[in-house]
Amino acid sequence: MALGVDYARQDCSLARALEVVGERWTMLILRDCFLGVRRFSDFAAHLDISKAVLTERLAGLVEAGLLERTGTGHAEYVVTERARGLWPALFALAQWGDAERAPHGPRRLFEHEACGTRVDRTGRCPACGTVPGPEDLVTRPGPGADPTVRDDHVAQALRTPHRLLEPVVVRGAQRPE
Amino acid sequence: MALGVDYARQDCSLARALEVVGERWTMLILRDCFLGVRRFSDFAAHLDISKAVLTERLAGLVEAGLLERTGTGHAEYVVTERARGLWPALFALAQWGDAERAPHGPRRLFEHEACGTRVDRTGRCPACGTVPGPEDLVTRPGPGADPTVRDDHVAQALRTPHRLLEPVVVRGAQRPE
Repeated sequence: MALGVDYARQDCSLARALEVVGERWTMLILRDCFLGVRRFSDFAAHLDISKAVLTERLAGLVEAGLLERTGTGHAEYVVTERARGLWPALFALAQWGDAERAPHGPRRLFEHEACGTRVDRTGRCPACGTVPGPEDLVTRPGPGADPTVRDDHVAQALRTPHRLLEPVVVRGAQRPE
Repeated sequence: MALGVDYARQDCSLARALEVVGERWTMLILRDCFLGVRRFSDFAAHLDISKAVLTERLAGLVEAGLLERTGTGHAEYVVTERARGLWPALFALAQWGDAERAPHGPRRLFEHEACGTRVDRTGRCPACGTVPGPEDLVTRPGPGADPTVRDDHVAQALRTPHRLLEPVVVRGAQRPE
């Protein structure tokens, strides 16, 4: 298994999903991808993870068809259609984290761009009744965000309201690749 | 961390959720709990996991307030209100596993009991428009289920259509606790 988790004897689609995304750090890398992070050096700056593990996880996600490696020179990792289907699961987990482990309110808010309305806990837009895909959501920090936790250049860039999946403009980034 | 995952420097509710449920096997134990498994010996029969790890995971889930240990003599582990909030995330992950890694169709189906209608991929009942909680869903094996993968007594019991969270009747179980 490229991603190191194996539940082969579980006849279960949850197990199949976790084989792809259940490894430590993998979902947080995907979170960053949905937020618009694309470059190795930016993932490295934003995640407290060794470069060896990051390299291995990115390669595993490419192999599993969840990320596409593009670009010449500075490689970029872009979410595939297959990975977009994981958005509801990441959103649902984050909603639970907000509900249970965010004493000062949600750490991040998600709005349906077309309606300018926050989606509800099930991901539905209360204005139009649809469940927008990530490409139609704008994200911004919520009342529970704590900017003192980290101040790397990616964390700073992610504080600007922006549409999911669009590459974030990272200023002051070093590109040592 | 009771459950062994620590993303302390990630200011993120997804990270907080994964600290509780991101450990290997934890989500599959919760899956079994939602399906109605309650006893240590039944988890042990249905999951390919050492008893030491199972003991540790169950204790961690109790400590995190996701399971309640009840019963005298034969202990039972029951999903708490806090854990019920994780159902949308487990459901969404399983839906993705069905969509991407179930060539013969969904492995498990979920119906809104009141309407007798399968919920859609977002968990919504197309008949009444609500998103039923797990306690209102009936589950049964789908066309993609493969009964040859495992034939333990718990797997057999879980093939009977039943309401989520209700304890499954496990026949022929040994209760060596």
